[in-house]
Amino acid sequence: MHIHIENDASAPRALHLSVEQLQLQLDVHPPLRSHFTLSENRDPAQTADFLARCDILWSGRKLALDQFSTPRLGWVQVMSAGVEQWLAHWPQGVTLTNASGVHGDKGAEFILMAALMFNFGIPGFLQDQAQRVWRPTFGGCARGKIVLLLGVGGIGAAAATLLTAQGYRVIGVTRSGQCDANVARCIRIDALDEVLPQVDVVVSTLPLTPQTRNLFDRRRLDLLTARAGIVIVGRADVFDYSAMREKLNVGELAGAVLDVYPQEPLPADDPLWHTPGVVMTPHCSLDDHSAYLAGCLDVFIDNLARFRHGQPLRNQVDPARGY
Amino acid sequence: MHIHIENDASAPRALHLSVEQLQLQLDVHPPLRSHFTLSENRDPAQTADFLARCDILWSGRKLALDQFSTPRLGWVQVMSAGVEQWLAHWPQGVTLTNASGVHGDKGAEFILMAALMFNFGIPGFLQDQAQRVWRPTFGGCARGKIVLLLGVGGIGAAAATLLTAQGYRVIGVTRSGQCDANVARCIRIDALDEVLPQVDVVVSTLPLTPQTRNLFDRRRLDLLTARAGIVIVGRADVFDYSAMREKLNVGELAGAVLDVYPQEPLPADDPLWHTPGVVMTPHCSLDDHSAYLAGCLDVFIDNLARFRHGQPLRNQVDPARGY
Repeated sequence: MHIHIENDASAPRALHLSVEQLQLQLDVHPPLRSHFTLSENRDPAQTADFLARCDILWSGRKLALDQFSTPRLGWVQVMSAGVEQWLAHWPQGVTLTNASGVHGDKGAEFILMAALMFNFGIPGFLQDQAQRVWRPTFGGCARGKIVLLLGVGGIGAAAATLLTAQGYRVIGVTRSGQCDANVARCIRIDALDEVLPQVDVVVSTLPLTPQTRNLFDRRRLDLLTARAGIVIVGRADVFDYSAMREKLNVGELAGAVLDVYPQEPLPADDPLWHTPGVVMTPHCSLDDHSAYLAGCLDVFIDNLARFRHGQPLRNQVDPARGY
Repeated sequence: MHIHIENDASAPRALHLSVEQLQLQLDVHPPLRSHFTLSENRDPAQTADFLARCDILWSGRKLALDQFSTPRLGWVQVMSAGVEQWLAHWPQGVTLTNASGVHGDKGAEFILMAALMFNFGIPGFLQDQAQRVWRPTFGGCARGKIVLLLGVGGIGAAAATLLTAQGYRVIGVTRSGQCDANVARCIRIDALDEVLPQVDVVVSTLPLTPQTRNLFDRRRLDLLTARAGIVIVGRADVFDYSAMREKLNVGELAGAVLDVYPQEPLPADDPLWHTPGVVMTPHCSLDDHSAYLAGCLDVFIDNLARFRHGQPLRNQVDPARGY
């Protein structure tokens, strides 16, 4: 069987997988050692040729797969967690696995940091600092505050563990209303409106699907109290950023710690840059380049073994569900 | 025996201890119930009269005790952790106990937040945001990074527990080189210089004493690398703020998360307000007014029981040592 590696020439070298690296990993797993042939490409002009003759594709860049002839292709492993751009061009019958879980450790630390920043009023104090205003407030501990986790996948579950250990009361939100994560309570996404008024911090790790797009519209944002802070590390289009910005401008939210944006890089003239209470990181806070490739490779090698034994793959995306 | 409560009329009411509150606490402790008479005052013109006839003083405001006649006074419980202003006017032979430990829970959470903020480059991203610059960096997890805790008292020990649980490698610094806290290593204060070049985050909870004043002078700041961040929640005068500001201005430190200042409130014309990499809170991040009085009262009631039984008191300050 043939595995083709498609790298993104514009990505940092730390995110390129070489034939040698992959072969090294196969070599230490005897059942995989001599079962696969390998190729690698980073020249988009050559991509069609490689896709025409591979059985398995590892891809470090987004491809509109239905634009290619892929007669032998059975499975694609991608390096991202979000896959909405892949699914817009997905050939029927091909298995898709993503990098869910690889962002967990760093993502959970970022979410814990953001939740604590709200507890200590940092978004407000940053505004005071900019205006040279000394205005202390003597609030309580983070312990006991309520964090709503929208999505309890790889990142959400890791965050739930850290937040719970820190004494936060964590409410998970999933499609089914069930999850295995370390949460005090898990609710169905359609029960969301009832809990929003109680929440201290809303954290979204949600993927973008037809069901999640614009889930946090103006109406739902209005159900939050002015003490609530918002943390968005999943897909941006789950939220109405304009409505969120309007509410921040009038002090109807405690702030927003954002890593993702409707357009990236965020245009220099976007009013969000200087919206009060916004703390921005440029879509990098969940990615650890020193560990990212190795994390994806772990998923892939595990999946190759499962694939060889005809077992269900890890991180398999359901195209109908969208994640 | 007579206990006098001296409140600070200018402090928030949540920090005033009333005779009724104290009596309620005594009532639930049978050995203390009818042993003490109580008084309360918040008028500075009356203070001398009350001090002249009390055996025990609870004080919510700073007093130059050696300016008063205190013939019966044997013990003072104060509501702050730092006591350098008391010790400058201390009558010989009087026992002093402080509020050490009451700031632990909230202080530890603040320190954890600040350490995580450095890991995620927040001080740098805030500068980029102010200039509308999109400049991602893909660093690693906080886990494994080194935090140096200057002082491992009530706040430091609580912080050590949270940081260690989060995977930080914590080095404690104490006078003796020993501590009971949850640290990977504890060193003597005079071994400080050797570890400074390795440190990711320096956290100071140190009190102000002749030994700690200006401990972090220009020379010691220069031993830190440009990736190091500084968190100061103890006394400000342990650090040379001017030297720190100069280093921040030229990018020789990753940033500073500060709750305390050489002068408070910080004057509006102080250049620190707009120094790059500085995140400021106005001396409020360790104090939880909803729990503070109760925390101090716990120490005091425990100490009253010890006092009655002739046992050593908790949180007893050594005037020679300064904390």
